[in-house]
Amino acid sequence: MSVDFFESNREVLEQALAAAASRAYWSPFPESPSPRVYGETAAQDGQKAFEALLGQAFPLDLPGAQGTVGGERSPFGFDLDIRYPKVPADVLVQQAEQALESWREAGPRAWVGVSLEILKRLNQRSFEIANAVQHTTGQGFMMAFQAGGPHAQDRGLEAVAYAWQEMARIPELADWEKPQGKHDPLRMQKRFTIVPRGVALVIGVSTFPTWNGYPGLFASLATGNPVIVKPHPGAILPLAITVQVARQVLAEGGFDPNVVQLAAHEATDDTARELAMNPAVRIIDFTGSSANGNWLEAHARHAQVYTEKAGVNQVIIDSVEDIKAVARNLAFSFALYSGQMCTAPQNVYVPRDGITTADGRMSFDEVAQALAQAVERMVSDPAKAVELTGAIQNEATAQRIDAARELGLPVLCDSRALEHPQHPKARVRTPLVLKADASDERIFQEWFGPIVFVVATDSTEHSIQLARDTVVQHGALTLSGYTTRDAVAIDMRKAAERAGVSLSLNLTGGVFVNQTAAFSDFHGTGANPAANAALSDSAFVANRFRVVQTRWHV
Amino acid sequence: MSVDFFESNREVLEQALAAAASRAYWSPFPESPSPRVYGETAAQDGQKAFEALLGQAFPLDLPGAQGTVGGERSPFGFDLDIRYPKVPADVLVQQAEQALESWREAGPRAWVGVSLEILKRLNQRSFEIANAVQHTTGQGFMMAFQAGGPHAQDRGLEAVAYAWQEMARIPELADWEKPQGKHDPLRMQKRFTIVPRGVALVIGVSTFPTWNGYPGLFASLATGNPVIVKPHPGAILPLAITVQVARQVLAEGGFDPNVVQLAAHEATDDTARELAMNPAVRIIDFTGSSANGNWLEAHARHAQVYTEKAGVNQVIIDSVEDIKAVARNLAFSFALYSGQMCTAPQNVYVPRDGITTADGRMSFDEVAQALAQAVERMVSDPAKAVELTGAIQNEATAQRIDAARELGLPVLCDSRALEHPQHPKARVRTPLVLKADASDERIFQEWFGPIVFVVATDSTEHSIQLARDTVVQHGALTLSGYTTRDAVAIDMRKAAERAGVSLSLNLTGGVFVNQTAAFSDFHGTGANPAANAALSDSAFVANRFRVVQTRWHV
Repeated sequence: MSVDFFESNREVLEQALAAAASRAYWSPFPESPSPRVYGETAAQDGQKAFEALLGQAFPLDLPGAQGTVGGERSPFGFDLDIRYPKVPADVLVQQAEQALESWREAGPRAWVGVSLEILKRLNQRSFEIANAVQHTTGQGFMMAFQAGGPHAQDRGLEAVAYAWQEMARIPELADWEKPQGKHDPLRMQKRFTIVPRGVALVIGVSTFPTWNGYPGLFASLATGNPVIVKPHPGAILPLAITVQVARQVLAEGGFDPNVVQLAAHEATDDTARELAMNPAVRIIDFTGSSANGNWLEAHARHAQVYTEKAGVNQVIIDSVEDIKAVARNLAFSFALYSGQMCTAPQNVYVPRDGITTADGRMSFDEVAQALAQAVERMVSDPAKAVELTGAIQNEATAQRIDAARELGLPVLCDSRALEHPQHPKARVRTPLVLKADASDERIFQEWFGPIVFVVATDSTEHSIQLARDTVVQHGALTLSGYTTRDAVAIDMRKAAERAGVSLSLNLTGGVFVNQTAAFSDFHGTGANPAANAALSDSAFVANRFRVVQTRWHV
Repeated sequence: MSVDFFESNREVLEQALAAAASRAYWSPFPESPSPRVYGETAAQDGQKAFEALLGQAFPLDLPGAQGTVGGERSPFGFDLDIRYPKVPADVLVQQAEQALESWREAGPRAWVGVSLEILKRLNQRSFEIANAVQHTTGQGFMMAFQAGGPHAQDRGLEAVAYAWQEMARIPELADWEKPQGKHDPLRMQKRFTIVPRGVALVIGVSTFPTWNGYPGLFASLATGNPVIVKPHPGAILPLAITVQVARQVLAEGGFDPNVVQLAAHEATDDTARELAMNPAVRIIDFTGSSANGNWLEAHARHAQVYTEKAGVNQVIIDSVEDIKAVARNLAFSFALYSGQMCTAPQNVYVPRDGITTADGRMSFDEVAQALAQAVERMVSDPAKAVELTGAIQNEATAQRIDAARELGLPVLCDSRALEHPQHPKARVRTPLVLKADASDERIFQEWFGPIVFVVATDSTEHSIQLARDTVVQHGALTLSGYTTRDAVAIDMRKAAERAGVSLSLNLTGGVFVNQTAAFSDFHGTGANPAANAALSDSAFVANRFRVVQTRWHV
């Protein structure tokens, strides 16, 4: 290629590989939206760029388009009114197959170079993407910027680094010389070609279109597979911008832009299934409901299917130094983006006869009250609270809060609708915290949204057993434990390892159980029903390509 | 553990890793059965050890056994009459689950150390295993020794090396320190635990019980999973010896011997399905028919399923230097173990208007005759021929030769029954070579056994297209090409890469298309219907374990 994107991005790749090996902190994409980092006018420019898109046809030239589609509405209360080109599913697949012919010949250096360049350019558009994420997902701006921009780019880069690592270990050529005693040795030369699996499909989610979409997108792209990006009909824009950037980079590099395509579609049609069941689609990355994810795993047998679905995230409180620090940390996790995170805690287990603290015993009710009060405090100033909670993405989530109320459980902290100072029509809800008993089976299912159960258990042992069984049966992305006793910490860890869920111990500061850091924390384990893969590891990338060898005598 | 098997075998592990990285020739297990290598009495000792097993209860102490089972008959014409302990499927799984509890705690060093030690001891019993392989599979002795002994051990070691490589890249502990501007950094420590998936099942094949069984067995064992080894009822002994060795090493290391168990069963029962469908079984390695392999892939959804099934292996002849060298090489591949190899060539495509050679044009019939004559020459001396062909493992294969004859195609070289000088009751068959046309759809399916079709095509281009389409539709483990033209060699390679099958070009010497070398050649690609995995690569091992992390503030 005329532009050597691999060479120009080699340093960041090498740093990413080193970070993934040490799992120490590292990120090349600053998470601070400060003007000192991104430039004085970056924030305004990004917002203007976003606003310029509203009410327009999105500037994306997709061959095969038949009309337009789009009906996104900001959870903050206005219509985006952006129209995207609509390409029939079979045309997208045909165009991807066509693009595969030249893309496969480009080879690993080009695949990885293009991927890295796309990520670099996405970073430059982080403010525009932040606005797009905010007004499709309902996230507060800071979260939309960080999770939707630099953190998502980190996760994309992580996947590219793993992909490169796996491909780079396959030598292009090998000399093979086998001794034959007194006779001449057998001599062969062998050529190993990395071949992509085929057309890849990314099925985006409405809450984290970029953060959850980039790992699969970049893992497939960096291993030579053309990618069809199918956004959730409610959150098209962040992925449309992503596809736009990808196609620009591809064209600049002299490649077929159809290596990355957008499959925008109506909320009511079955584009996802039509794409997934096309036998030419060989890789599918899905984030969304367990029902849809399980359906894909069962039916899309012609493809490698990577899913992140739903689960029941849990907190075990055994004993604490300072309940206020614990409650503050947890309240933040409950309120953050109104619990619309696959990692948000839902069930908090507390022994019914209370816990020990540095200041003596606390009863179950005192612990429950402390949690409720921390939530109240967290949302007491609506202007600050809305930055944390953002808005409710989907009306069904608001309805779920009502359904939880109708369980008839004691209310520790009621959910309130807050008025957003800048966006009066925004759908804002504070967390609902209910008191429950471990014998209540209704809480052992996912209550997606700002819904928390403080659950009375027989003992910490019982809490651990409940947590373990629930992960095995329903899946979970996170588990949080609080204890001042080493032996209990070990029991929690063993339970987490056996159930296959990551454990955060005694989080009381600026790290929250629902957040993971690329290059260091694995997101998901692939070892429980909530996800069949982890972000990112060798297993996430190693089967997206195959190796075909040719050998001959020399 | 008291015995540090990891340390004592570290050097061979490091060499294996280096070999897999360079893909140059390497093997720690000598393939020569020479007394100078294995010791003056090794051959006799091995044979005596084998003979001492005949007519006896096999010395394997398996808890939970309910009676015995066994009805193996040597394809060379005698009953082995060995009885193996029979343990019900659910008891095997329960015992494996129990063994998992301590095995998982042993950790990667112990898993890998034990695996390496088992392989070392298996090598010491190569002659005994060679006899066991010969008299269950029907392979000639030399092949039974090499493929069933050192080459199988190589493939097992290769899987262990890949497993170690993937596990070793996960740090046990990581320090994570995230800058917070003017504030103190966030500091965490993280612990990463490799957790096995669960109970693993290896389903053995009757023709290569060790060679095809070891990769899955050792890949699962080395990643912490207890393994149930279920041999084909016709080829139990080689895997029974393997399990015996594994249990000895485990016991010596202070581990539960039930980490490796044998599931010997009657030919008529459904032990394989019962084991495979037990939800505690999380990994399955299968070698055998496409019907059974596809069934497992479709139904054992609770497990990671790795399959090697059947396909149609093909040869494309475009042009040659020396037809005699080509024919000699191919005749060897046709006759070797009577074509009872998943890698044996079946369809040979030759343009109907002939090919060019260094000595001028040859017509299609001349090429076909040259192949047939080379086969005739290869089997003309029965005493030598039987060492090459071995015996027919399964009566169905002998019947298939008759069925091929009944296709009514012109016979280029008829299959004959040979009398084995040492084993008059042995079922020995020489290759059947038939002439066919590319329009005959009956040849585009697997004809397992010594059955070869020399197929007239319109052109080399047509041959390549046929080969490519057949791989995509029916799968293949091997593809062989002969051409003196560089452009055609590239076309063949591109076709192979697109279809996803390895290509051997212009083999005329001591390397045969149906043989692959561990550490250098991948066996299978995982990219066509004949196998969903390759032996061995990262993808073969990386999903047999998962990583569960625990993080906490420091």
